[in-house]
Amino acid sequence: MKEVRVGLIGTGYMGKAHAIALRAMPAVFPVDARVICELLADPVAQRAEKYCREFCFNRWTDDWQALVADEAVDVVDICAPNFLHYDMAMAAIAQGKHVYCEKPLSLSAEQSLEMTEAAEAAGVKTLVGYNYAKNPATALAKEIIESGEIGEVIHFRGTHIEDYLADPSIPYSWRLQRKMAGLGALGDLCHIINMAQLLVGGIEQVCADMQTVIKRRPIVGSDDMGEVENEDQAHMMMRFTAGAIGTIECSRVAHGRKLGLTYEVTGTKGSLVFDQERQNELQFYSAADASNRQGFRTILVGPEHPDYAAFCCAPGHGLGFNDQKIIEVRDLIEGIVNERAIWPDFRAALAVDNVNAAAERSFLEQRWVNV
Amino acid sequence: MKEVRVGLIGTGYMGKAHAIALRAMPAVFPVDARVICELLADPVAQRAEKYCREFCFNRWTDDWQALVADEAVDVVDICAPNFLHYDMAMAAIAQGKHVYCEKPLSLSAEQSLEMTEAAEAAGVKTLVGYNYAKNPATALAKEIIESGEIGEVIHFRGTHIEDYLADPSIPYSWRLQRKMAGLGALGDLCHIINMAQLLVGGIEQVCADMQTVIKRRPIVGSDDMGEVENEDQAHMMMRFTAGAIGTIECSRVAHGRKLGLTYEVTGTKGSLVFDQERQNELQFYSAADASNRQGFRTILVGPEHPDYAAFCCAPGHGLGFNDQKIIEVRDLIEGIVNERAIWPDFRAALAVDNVNAAAERSFLEQRWVNV
Amino acid sequence: MKEVRVGLIGTGYMGKAHAIALRAMPAVFPVDARVICELLADPVAQRAEKYCREFCFNRWTDDWQALVADEAVDVVDICAPNFLHYDMAMAAIAQGKHVYCEKPLSLSAEQSLEMTEAAEAAGVKTLVGYNYAKNPATALAKEIIESGEIGEVIHFRGTHIEDYLADPSIPYSWRLQRKMAGLGALGDLCHIINMAQLLVGGIEQVCADMQTVIKRRPIVGSDDMGEVENEDQAHMMMRFTAGAIGTIECSRVAHGRKLGLTYEVTGTKGSLVFDQERQNELQFYSAADASNRQGFRTILVGPEHPDYAAFCCAPGHGLGFNDQKIIEVRDLIEGIVNERAIWPDFRAALAVDNVNAAAERSFLEQRWVNV
Amino acid sequence: MKEVRVGLIGTGYMGKAHAIALRAMPAVFPVDARVICELLADPVAQRAEKYCREFCFNRWTDDWQALVADEAVDVVDICAPNFLHYDMAMAAIAQGKHVYCEKPLSLSAEQSLEMTEAAEAAGVKTLVGYNYAKNPATALAKEIIESGEIGEVIHFRGTHIEDYLADPSIPYSWRLQRKMAGLGALGDLCHIINMAQLLVGGIEQVCADMQTVIKRRPIVGSDDMGEVENEDQAHMMMRFTAGAIGTIECSRVAHGRKLGLTYEVTGTKGSLVFDQERQNELQFYSAADASNRQGFRTILVGPEHPDYAAFCCAPGHGLGFNDQKIIEVRDLIEGIVNERAIWPDFRAALAVDNVNAAAERSFLEQRWVNV
Repeated sequence: MKEVRVGLIGTGYMGKAHAIALRAMPAVFPVDARVICELLADPVAQRAEKYCREFCFNRWTDDWQALVADEAVDVVDICAPNFLHYDMAMAAIAQGKHVYCEKPLSLSAEQSLEMTEAAEAAGVKTLVGYNYAKNPATALAKEIIESGEIGEVIHFRGTHIEDYLADPSIPYSWRLQRKMAGLGALGDLCHIINMAQLLVGGIEQVCADMQTVIKRRPIVGSDDMGEVENEDQAHMMMRFTAGAIGTIECSRVAHGRKLGLTYEVTGTKGSLVFDQERQNELQFYSAADASNRQGFRTILVGPEHPDYAAFCCAPGHGLGFNDQKIIEVRDLIEGIVNERAIWPDFRAALAVDNVNAAAERSFLEQRWVNV
Repeated sequence: MKEVRVGLIGTGYMGKAHAIALRAMPAVFPVDARVICELLADPVAQRAEKYCREFCFNRWTDDWQALVADEAVDVVDICAPNFLHYDMAMAAIAQGKHVYCEKPLSLSAEQSLEMTEAAEAAGVKTLVGYNYAKNPATALAKEIIESGEIGEVIHFRGTHIEDYLADPSIPYSWRLQRKMAGLGALGDLCHIINMAQLLVGGIEQVCADMQTVIKRRPIVGSDDMGEVENEDQAHMMMRFTAGAIGTIECSRVAHGRKLGLTYEVTGTKGSLVFDQERQNELQFYSAADASNRQGFRTILVGPEHPDYAAFCCAPGHGLGFNDQKIIEVRDLIEGIVNERAIWPDFRAALAVDNVNAAAERSFLEQRWVNV
Repeated sequence: MKEVRVGLIGTGYMGKAHAIALRAMPAVFPVDARVICELLADPVAQRAEKYCREFCFNRWTDDWQALVADEAVDVVDICAPNFLHYDMAMAAIAQGKHVYCEKPLSLSAEQSLEMTEAAEAAGVKTLVGYNYAKNPATALAKEIIESGEIGEVIHFRGTHIEDYLADPSIPYSWRLQRKMAGLGALGDLCHIINMAQLLVGGIEQVCADMQTVIKRRPIVGSDDMGEVENEDQAHMMMRFTAGAIGTIECSRVAHGRKLGLTYEVTGTKGSLVFDQERQNELQFYSAADASNRQGFRTILVGPEHPDYAAFCCAPGHGLGFNDQKIIEVRDLIEGIVNERAIWPDFRAALAVDNVNAAAERSFLEQRWVNV
Repeated sequence: MKEVRVGLIGTGYMGKAHAIALRAMPAVFPVDARVICELLADPVAQRAEKYCREFCFNRWTDDWQALVADEAVDVVDICAPNFLHYDMAMAAIAQGKHVYCEKPLSLSAEQSLEMTEAAEAAGVKTLVGYNYAKNPATALAKEIIESGEIGEVIHFRGTHIEDYLADPSIPYSWRLQRKMAGLGALGDLCHIINMAQLLVGGIEQVCADMQTVIKRRPIVGSDDMGEVENEDQAHMMMRFTAGAIGTIECSRVAHGRKLGLTYEVTGTKGSLVFDQERQNELQFYSAADASNRQGFRTILVGPEHPDYAAFCCAPGHGLGFNDQKIIEVRDLIEGIVNERAIWPDFRAALAVDNVNAAAERSFLEQRWVNV
């Protein structure tokens, strides 16, 4: 049985989510490979040691470059802040390692393009953590769309709105600085763009608006306020290559929305509605139902739908956030050991970044922009 | 007790809704006036006679100009197709009659401006049928916003989407022709623009996109297809005078949506969510709740909320579509007999038409446009 | 055109609801009769006069016996407190008048039986105000059950729970005394029993439990507390003649429930779920759907469903509480002028009272009881 | 660091769920112990070998008695069919092993009592798999009740209804035989009884009804039909020691319900509503809210609520079925290594079985029965 040895950089929320998924995946999916949690990196040695134990890794280091260079590492798994993705991924690719990277891929479409080309030239596998696309409910949505059951898609309305920065007393951080984080709400909550592309295909033109609502935030341990450099909320109109039109909205200051990743896909024969806060449900409306029995039906995902059966034997039991990461890790490991294409790879993540770059240009120039 | 004698033009769906409301209102609200359903006009005499009886009117005519000129008519109530609003209203105003008119007010912002100025010069009362603004749940939303409970409004997302033309076999009609109907989805489903203005205030700039999805429709009694001249779906980004940004979407081809008139208003201290298909509920999220007890709460409108107590003694009983028209008629009659301002009058309806006109210009010129 | 002249006794909440419905009905349904709101009775003359004007009635009296005897009255409409129903109805029947009576029909199954037999012997028409059975969504539920679409019914779970007495500071009243009100929650919220019988048929055996939660309440204008003599909450298990089993729960102290009149009907081929707080929706699950597309679908009632088209031209517009009363009045008037059977008449209401009487006996004797 | 070595018996759905949880738990919760998946038993050697690999266990056996006797096993984890629980648990206890057993604990209250007393006498730790009680939303419900926020509990309505046997073509199996499975719907779906006891406390009296809807089912590989020996649906009325009353319903033939484990807890100051199909939401109604702002609020569980923070950093991300098992395993391991009480242990599971036994007696004798 092949071994896949993972080196994970980062011990924050995403680091832990990856650790859980890497550990749990083999018990969920009978993949023909041994996944080994080999090496964990955190710049603070004490933290690295603590989380090495807690995350069930074999070894730790306080030097990510040592991790990237470590011979016992096959996959470099990047869960560090956005501004480090580029350097880490490029170093890993240079070492011929596969790269598993959290989103957004980098700070700019330019960086992402460079990373994509480097990875493709090196022939390494890549996967970017757009985990919500792995949810069986969204996989079912894709299946329904591809089957033609809702006809030709004519409209897409998506949101990814949360309220993690709605409280103005939340302090200043790297997430609010252009050099460290890139875009704000659009950059962090770009899952919905990935989802639009997954479900409706390429986006050709966008016209966007954005706004920083809370312009200054308290700096921890200081009386000064930090200037917020990226947007709190944004929305855009889009035109898809296939002819549909749509809108997308992202916000980090939308009181009440915790994971307001939603979409409504309208077709010429039916519609789909989804809300990640109820991740095990897909609303499906079919114009093919008898006219006096039509209505949105709530499909609870179950063993007949993609990837669900490995988790539970019946609908209603339900998957959680971490289970999406388990599916993602399955795709990563299977892609590597079976030399199969992985989605979403760097190129797919670049497509998201291209939309965001166009959105920003559109806002700055106050006009429609080609992606 | 004063009398208010109404002359109603039109016997279609809206004609009937007005007839029901005119008849029922006095039993619901103890208004200090007698409402008399005096005269009903329909160009087809047989129909006028039939509906005069069914709508409980005193007299009928097949000539709307006779109705407008009739001495026993105090209010001309216009429920005729859009393209007739202008002539009918102008004739009524010329006779010094009050005018109660269905939306959209006219075929263009230019016509609406002329009508508004004529009505104001004549000193007659006007009311335009944006009935959803009369719903107690939306009145409550306004109350909450004005109270400051959700803080400063920063975002508005609205939709008015329906599927009444989603089936391509639905035949060609006057609604699909520019000269008869004006705009398509935007024109017919402009309630959401009225609601945005009610809740968030003036709209200053818009950038819109629109699309005709089903380009030809069968002509009844012919082998020809009629060319659809106005949009099936549209959306726009908006900037409000008060600083908030937002989006609005209108569609008449959105499978599954029957009265998808929805809004989400985000403020700096909370949020409101509403869906007209559940017209007796308002979702309210308050950041003032204890952090571990926060959540959208479903307020069922009841006697403590605006205008509800006249209908029912307890929450949960609920109002229906026609009840909104009853509130609207109450506003009309009270405005007339007490010489009070009425909202939304022609000027308020003109504000909607101005947004739509700007949206159309924005689409044609592919740019942001000032309203 | 025939005339039906109504004498209404009572000016409280139900009195007003009847007044609105009597006035509005003819504009909604093209019934071949003139409904005349002839005479209104309230024991307090000043109130009778005031409401005569507000309810749009022709005349008033402070003597219900005068009303019953009035030659110009064809139908006696009883909206007085429960303990008066028996005397008023018996007097009306003795005069050969049709009787429209609010629920519960009387204070006991014995009284109801006497009233039923008197009405049948006299050949007058009767209708009891189980208005929720008139809701198009429940009419659709009945249609679906009768069509066999959910197969044979095997289970019914119903509730009618409200919170109008949940607050212990709400004062003592006639509703809490056995001699005046009869049963408590079960008596007042017996709509759900009527609904069970409508949808699943006769109830043969019951076993019930009940409880008075708030045992004393303040008497207005006194320092004393009044003893609550009937139950605040109750539930029962039932066995239907047709073989299904079920439960029913009634409460007037269920915090948060405003009109928690709900049912779930399970059949061998599908299920129906309804909640009166969302009165325009019926949830329908069909095992005949493709196994990977199954789910409860939300049918929004519309013109294709019973009685809806007279109110609105499209689904989503929705009916409210008073609209159910309008349908009820339509049934009353059509029953009278066309000499058709009316449902639910006194005999149907007696069936409800028989279940309640059996429930009470079951509780007192702590055993299953035949209805 | 202490080691806890687990021997798992059973490779079906529950076996896999335990395997996933045992493997994933240490990466989720920083428990001070090493959990070792030591030995897996399945009577079919080939299956044992296959699942040993897939479930990430060290060794396998086809003899559960060998597993129980194995020196390297500290905890015997029983995921075998119901009728084997007694023998396996008694054998494990005799060896001084801790026992982790799926529900129901045994085939009868008598067996469960014997097992409980044996475990207590031996001083071994026990845990029974009532996993839904581990859901943070239900833990939050308990917290709210204990805080007094909804006052004194007066009513409990619970259901555990599913449709896994609603299709009459589903074949005969051990689950339908008294000797192998014990009770039917009540036995299998007894989670709701455990939940009632968790939230409202001891149940003193019950009165139950039950029914086998589909009386015969096809035997696989035969033309004969097998006689169904236990109930498809059941419900009972209950009286709690603390004074509340309630109802519980269980069904395995309730079309449309996949995990219809729901409860509504009514108190004198508020209410809670929960549905396991939306396991990350708790509906909370507080009478302490301003009267015109009251409504059920949807609390999305998050890091401020019990046990959630170990899984995800923010509300909305959500837990799935397997995550509840992870919490359960955490309780097991912590209970063992820290010598702390574990809930629900055999005694708590016995309390469930006692209610079921009383329910059955109540049905057979058609009367109320003391538990």
